[in-house]
Amino acid sequence: MSVTIVTGASRGLGLAICQLILKKDSEAKVVAVARSGDQLSDLAAKFAPRVLSIAGDVTDSSVVKQTVEKTIAKFGRIDSVVLNAGLLDPVGHIAELNVDHVRRLYEVNLFSVIDLVAQTLPYVRETGGNFLFVSSGASIKPVDGWSAYGSSKAALNLFCASVSEEEPKVRTISLAPGTVDTAMQQDIREKFKSGMKPEAHKRFTDLHKRQELLPPDVPGTLYANLALQGIPQELSGKYFRYNDDKLTKYAA
Amino acid sequence: MSVTIVTGASRGLGLAICQLILKKDSEAKVVAVARSGDQLSDLAAKFAPRVLSIAGDVTDSSVVKQTVEKTIAKFGRIDSVVLNAGLLDPVGHIAELNVDHVRRLYEVNLFSVIDLVAQTLPYVRETGGNFLFVSSGASIKPVDGWSAYGSSKAALNLFCASVSEEEPKVRTISLAPGTVDTAMQQDIREKFKSGMKPEAHKRFTDLHKRQELLPPDVPGTLYANLALQGIPQELSGKYFRYNDDKLTKYAA
Repeated sequence: MSVTIVTGASRGLGLAICQLILKKDSEAKVVAVARSGDQLSDLAAKFAPRVLSIAGDVTDSSVVKQTVEKTIAKFGRIDSVVLNAGLLDPVGHIAELNVDHVRRLYEVNLFSVIDLVAQTLPYVRETGGNFLFVSSGASIKPVDGWSAYGSSKAALNLFCASVSEEEPKVRTISLAPGTVDTAMQQDIREKFKSGMKPEAHKRFTDLHKRQELLPPDVPGTLYANLALQGIPQELSGKYFRYNDDKLTKYAA
Repeated sequence: MSVTIVTGASRGLGLAICQLILKKDSEAKVVAVARSGDQLSDLAAKFAPRVLSIAGDVTDSSVVKQTVEKTIAKFGRIDSVVLNAGLLDPVGHIAELNVDHVRRLYEVNLFSVIDLVAQTLPYVRETGGNFLFVSSGASIKPVDGWSAYGSSKAALNLFCASVSEEEPKVRTISLAPGTVDTAMQQDIREKFKSGMKPEAHKRFTDLHKRQELLPPDVPGTLYANLALQGIPQELSGKYFRYNDDKLTKYAA
């Protein structure tokens, strides 16, 4: 049996990862963390007693602390942590960025991640477990209007490498899920148009029009398999895109 | 005549860059920004009236605003901005990181940088000018105990690429200065020993013992030349180490 904590678990990629873990391994336990507890109730009802739902904001360190305490109290161990909660906003050109909005993005995309890794590390060391960071292609190649998001994901990649460097007993991976058909993509199409140049924005509306957005299960399967089977040593600390050849065996 | 803003200008690499710019070009103007105004007085006395000193903390957005306003009032233009102010602390292993200390580091190493770039961009666009980001080798390859610093510099590299991507009229470079004989190195040897594994720490004490730390003028010359001559288009948006072959012509 294995225990995986997933943040941003109420929808999209995070929800898909939870469901896939629970379906693929009938012994697996999932701790689903999300701001909105309501959206976790379906998952909890379907897979109880293998699901522990935590309603709370991961940028609140007391929520992170409670998550760890409740996980240990209920399941006794932590094998994997999927750091999925993330924010794209603020989308906008650099001359117009509101630095307070950048700070808020970093609270979600980086500082809460560092907090959760720091607080779970003693337990993940014990199981020789895994940290899976949800990264982005925008961490490697900048996307117009996404400097706050892209830089936070570049920071995440280096943080992932740092955990692997410092902690020989754990494995880590920073994995970009591709362009997935989630609420974030809907926001890009509708809400964030004004913050991007037309041609940069069109790339995303075109992907949607041509129905080329990935179903959440496609990258979700990779995270679920890596969380359940463990990240191989030769991939640890590194960044990959979901369709990298080195990940083929985890794609089904 | 060109006008360059340099942050963290009171000592070490920042001070060297200011002095080199002023010596290399007798028409050049420098705006030297540092928390401690006292340490700027020698520079201002030696090179007045070509120096504008600003005493203030760049994490305070009103200081950034004043810096831009005073620069335009005194010199009328901005050609280059050298984003040098930086903090290494907190140094420590991830399980022991204080997230509030990580936030403080990001205020200096990233958020103040985004603020200064956003506020100077309208002027740097007008001159077809340059943003020079002081990066670190730790942004590419993690150093034990430096996950906060390294991740902030990885974020900086991607932000540098983003500015270049979004702003066709300006040039940017993210440049790692190597291991320079500054107060930061003294802190690493003396103050941050407990936050690093012995073998990781020894690398720095050995460099010092063997007198292999770089004088600030060695990388400083690169920043000064690139600020004065302009960053070539083919290097714009990218990360380099100070000793990269592509930079040889800027090293003297």
